[in-house]
Amino acid sequence: MTYCVALRVEEGLVLVSDSRTNAGVDHIACFKKLYTFEFADDRVIFIQSAGNLATTQSVMTILEQGMGSEGNSLAKAKTMFEVAEIVGRVVRSVIQRDSGQNQGVDFSCNLLVSGQIKGEPLRLFHIYPQGNFIESVPETPFFQIGESKYGKPILDRVIGYKTPLDKAFQCALISMDSTLRSNLSVGMPLDAVLYRADSLKVARQYCIDESCQEFAQLRSAWSEGLRHLFDGLPNYFS
Amino acid sequence: MTYCVALRVEEGLVLVSDSRTNAGVDHIACFKKLYTFEFADDRVIFIQSAGNLATTQSVMTILEQGMGSEGNSLAKAKTMFEVAEIVGRVVRSVIQRDSGQNQGVDFSCNLLVSGQIKGEPLRLFHIYPQGNFIESVPETPFFQIGESKYGKPILDRVIGYKTPLDKAFQCALISMDSTLRSNLSVGMPLDAVLYRADSLKVARQYCIDESCQEFAQLRSAWSEGLRHLFDGLPNYFS
Repeated sequence: MTYCVALRVEEGLVLVSDSRTNAGVDHIACFKKLYTFEFADDRVIFIQSAGNLATTQSVMTILEQGMGSEGNSLAKAKTMFEVAEIVGRVVRSVIQRDSGQNQGVDFSCNLLVSGQIKGEPLRLFHIYPQGNFIESVPETPFFQIGESKYGKPILDRVIGYKTPLDKAFQCALISMDSTLRSNLSVGMPLDAVLYRADSLKVARQYCIDESCQEFAQLRSAWSEGLRHLFDGLPNYFS
Repeated sequence: MTYCVALRVEEGLVLVSDSRTNAGVDHIACFKKLYTFEFADDRVIFIQSAGNLATTQSVMTILEQGMGSEGNSLAKAKTMFEVAEIVGRVVRSVIQRDSGQNQGVDFSCNLLVSGQIKGEPLRLFHIYPQGNFIESVPETPFFQIGESKYGKPILDRVIGYKTPLDKAFQCALISMDSTLRSNLSVGMPLDAVLYRADSLKVARQYCIDESCQEFAQLRSAWSEGLRHLFDGLPNYFS
């Protein structure tokens, strides 16, 4: 499986994706699930993917190849809505193509598409396997795809549209940590991107693996803090 | 959906179940999912249920009606293993009976069966829809059924076989709280039971609804503590 989370807060965008893919437990591999298209001072577009790897790789390749073409190019789309439409069309056509010979295989995928085009607002979309999509709004400032349930409670408790970007990043990493601990099919390294609204360039980018001191410190501070908080709770039901 | 959790720690057993059932979002009802069979000084048996309500109600009724019969009676089984076998047989037969006319309906259910018979050890089983089952061991001191993912991280982080009974109860309630907040299909009231090993009687029993002060205090202490912990984390990635 996979876990990808995207937070669209007031200050900008936080994206974190794991990189484990598996077919069963004995066919595990490492694939990037966070793609960045950066066109200096014109647009930045991010795509995170979960689901059938053949589908998402096809979708990404078709999108990359379409960069030069009219009507199908992420580089030439006028709005992020148009970007979402293009991605949705490609998802639909790839899944339709492959489902012809369907033998009980799940070809579906979910994508998170986010970014900003010069003069346009920063936006975040969740593209469904049917190619349709929904957009994040201030009342719902984050989307998750893949193994989303383990890491949802901390997001529900902490994240609002006004959460500062650095805090949102921390929360996304804690959400990822909970998922890594509880589900074997989600694994390191993690890809992470921070984008500040209206900057039109990536602010910070990380590839977080087992050797990353900062993530190790965050995990252990959170884990110890939780345990301390739990141990200190009064016994209300005594 | 449903969320039930059972913790079998050294001191005894903690069981917590929600009580919401739903078929879609507009057919919501309240049904008990934690059943207690208490035979003073001889045996205490608990069953928690998740899945198709027609199936679980049939299973429970057949088990209750079978109390007097030989070979199929929870009241007469010699070991908890035999109890698990009886429950598994009934699950299998009910699902087989109803699946004859299957029109894409999911008749399956999962049950947690726990308890103790005089002179026998305290045991906890997870019965699958196929009627087979697994048993909790000290290395895996809890089982969950239903909407289990939201509430799993805190159990993974905190619960061990040596966790005191009261602490295990608190953790089960926090796990339930996370699930209640993140998933609409899990709802109050909660049924909870604490059982001390070798006592052969229920130690404490709660029906926790919105008016329960103790649960409200625990939820708010946990929620505020988490937020405080989160706000106080240093920014490792600055």
